[in-house]
Amino acid sequence: MTAINAFETPMTNLPDQIVDAIRSVIGPSPAVLHEPCFTGNEWIYVKECLDSTFVSSVGEFVDRFEVDLARFTGAKHAVAVVNGTAALHIALKLAGVTSGDEVLIPALTFVATANAVTYCNAIPHFVDSEDSTLGVDANKLRDYLVTHTEQRAGQCVNLTSGRVIRALVPMHTFGHPVDLDGLLAIAHDFNIALVEDAAESLGSYYHGQHTGTFGLLGTLSFNGNKTITTGGGGAILTNDAELARHAKHLTTTAKLPHAWEYCHDEIGYNYRMPNLNAALGCAQLEQLPAMLVAKRALFQHYQAVFASLQGIALVTEPAQCQSNYWLQTLLLDVEQASLRDLVLKATNQSGYMTRPAWMLMHELESFRDCPRMDLSVAQSLAERLINIPSSSCLYYA
Amino acid sequence: MTAINAFETPMTNLPDQIVDAIRSVIGPSPAVLHEPCFTGNEWIYVKECLDSTFVSSVGEFVDRFEVDLARFTGAKHAVAVVNGTAALHIALKLAGVTSGDEVLIPALTFVATANAVTYCNAIPHFVDSEDSTLGVDANKLRDYLVTHTEQRAGQCVNLTSGRVIRALVPMHTFGHPVDLDGLLAIAHDFNIALVEDAAESLGSYYHGQHTGTFGLLGTLSFNGNKTITTGGGGAILTNDAELARHAKHLTTTAKLPHAWEYCHDEIGYNYRMPNLNAALGCAQLEQLPAMLVAKRALFQHYQAVFASLQGIALVTEPAQCQSNYWLQTLLLDVEQASLRDLVLKATNQSGYMTRPAWMLMHELESFRDCPRMDLSVAQSLAERLINIPSSSCLYYA
Repeated sequence: MTAINAFETPMTNLPDQIVDAIRSVIGPSPAVLHEPCFTGNEWIYVKECLDSTFVSSVGEFVDRFEVDLARFTGAKHAVAVVNGTAALHIALKLAGVTSGDEVLIPALTFVATANAVTYCNAIPHFVDSEDSTLGVDANKLRDYLVTHTEQRAGQCVNLTSGRVIRALVPMHTFGHPVDLDGLLAIAHDFNIALVEDAAESLGSYYHGQHTGTFGLLGTLSFNGNKTITTGGGGAILTNDAELARHAKHLTTTAKLPHAWEYCHDEIGYNYRMPNLNAALGCAQLEQLPAMLVAKRALFQHYQAVFASLQGIALVTEPAQCQSNYWLQTLLLDVEQASLRDLVLKATNQSGYMTRPAWMLMHELESFRDCPRMDLSVAQSLAERLINIPSSSCLYYA
Repeated sequence: MTAINAFETPMTNLPDQIVDAIRSVIGPSPAVLHEPCFTGNEWIYVKECLDSTFVSSVGEFVDRFEVDLARFTGAKHAVAVVNGTAALHIALKLAGVTSGDEVLIPALTFVATANAVTYCNAIPHFVDSEDSTLGVDANKLRDYLVTHTEQRAGQCVNLTSGRVIRALVPMHTFGHPVDLDGLLAIAHDFNIALVEDAAESLGSYYHGQHTGTFGLLGTLSFNGNKTITTGGGGAILTNDAELARHAKHLTTTAKLPHAWEYCHDEIGYNYRMPNLNAALGCAQLEQLPAMLVAKRALFQHYQAVFASLQGIALVTEPAQCQSNYWLQTLLLDVEQASLRDLVLKATNQSGYMTRPAWMLMHELESFRDCPRMDLSVAQSLAERLINIPSSSCLYYA
């Protein structure tokens, strides 16, 4: 097919070119979007855990996983929990989010971010993204807050709804760090708690510091599709010892320590990570540095082939950031947006699993009536983003 | 020490006699209250799961565990979830429990029953137990409902609070089936949904039918202290295909099936049981019949020695019921109640782990102001119950 005008009309052979490009990097299909990579002590630790019979709510691997996580991320404290959604729920509670509050979250995120807000009986308030990070646009958010909120008794009040905006939960999309300097300044200036949804960004750094350690609290996920997995799992990160103690307490049914008495001093949750899952996590964390090298290598190989294709770009880490490249991501040019579903179809039919970004949160029935700012950038990104096969095992040395 | 009057004053040598009796049945200490027993295919299935890399939210072991659970319990459908608390939360939602409702639960239960009610923004309403089952007293409850509620538009309304009593959640205490005939009749006559908290009663039968299969929904737990364990885990049982479909949907983020689109049609939960944990569960379920034999043998050995001790009784299964004997339980005579803490101290100090019943729910700060009926039987039981070492491995053939 001859090029007619690549910059104004969709290039209908782009889907096939993308299939060829992916094949040239990762070899013959099939390839899933992301699969776990077990090349270390996974079976040894899991077997050790089974042999100990301590597979459940207490055990050495949970303690060790928490210590290892804190060491890796540089957070002072890490509390292992049953999944990333549970981590977000508790982090929001600890940030003071309560019934009737609003919580600022990106419209472009996985549904867990919004769901966790509702578990606190609070209301998600959707904010826009920026092209450079895919995450919350700090400048646009600041302008919005200036005109749409006011400070009352040290709280940020939404002038339209009259509700308190209690927290801001940026998400590091596909592992790319958000503009933390800009968002920390907003949190400070508007008296809003910053909770980082770092579910996707274990191994990602903003100005040399690990994501999830900037806010009052941060949350991680170790679901099966993440960079490392515990089967199901998550963690809460914080530098505040009292918040960490409270997080552990709330996630373990709020039981007071006693040799035999069952006294619970507040309404708690059964959000413990089982020791069996932590055993897997300890082994996976040992492999994480090598996985990050492999994921960067995969990015570089993709970059080499996609650089020559017109109409698309491979998403790269923001300036002064180091992304974990959890999910490798193509961004179609605006003029090629109409090709998205054809690309998804061609790649998936060829056995290369790809997917678009999530449906934007305000487009889901459950959140249709929630407050939101102009979301034009998120909207445009959601129409053009495509995740492509990203497993670390594809380039694991 | 000579017997003075065993029937009127505490027998101060009872604690030592109990320690000796336990020792004579299970041998030298230490012995924990309940530990997992891994003597079957646990290693094989867990290793198979790791080798497949499908350790997380989808996988063959989850499907198989659900089929095996349904077959074992006779429920038409079983949905595996992350723990028993999550199972209760979703079962209550599916039973229609919503903000401002009341839910009848025993005061004598683990805190998860009450917590799950609050996760629905509903209010626990505490009811009394009966001596013969340790569970909800159906006769006393019926009398209470007759005088304290009225039917309005097909709903059971608490005359004092004006709130709808939406559900009744009996719990099969320590594995002993509650009076289901009496409670099913109440549920029918008063238009209240019956949800069975069968967390402790996998392998317990009421009139030949498995507990957890009588109510609209039932819930199981596979925590590390239960008869079988998945590390952490639970399940929802129901004979209603639509409720089962909805339970699966709600516990898996309410995502609609699609090759690549992320559309969620209601607010869902991340309550999936990971495949890694289900692999352990499949192996454990194969061992369950032998474990139940072992637990019954342990009961019989305890019974033989405790029969000769005055001042206490070993709790036995209710008439026409088959208990799993999850936790072996001593009940001090009323006159010996003051010895409870001395018994707990003597046994624990001797390395035999024992514990009392849970603190009654209405005595916890969080639930102090919740509605309740007279709880004198539960109160008396809580002062006199002592669980003693109960692991199936103690008498596993």
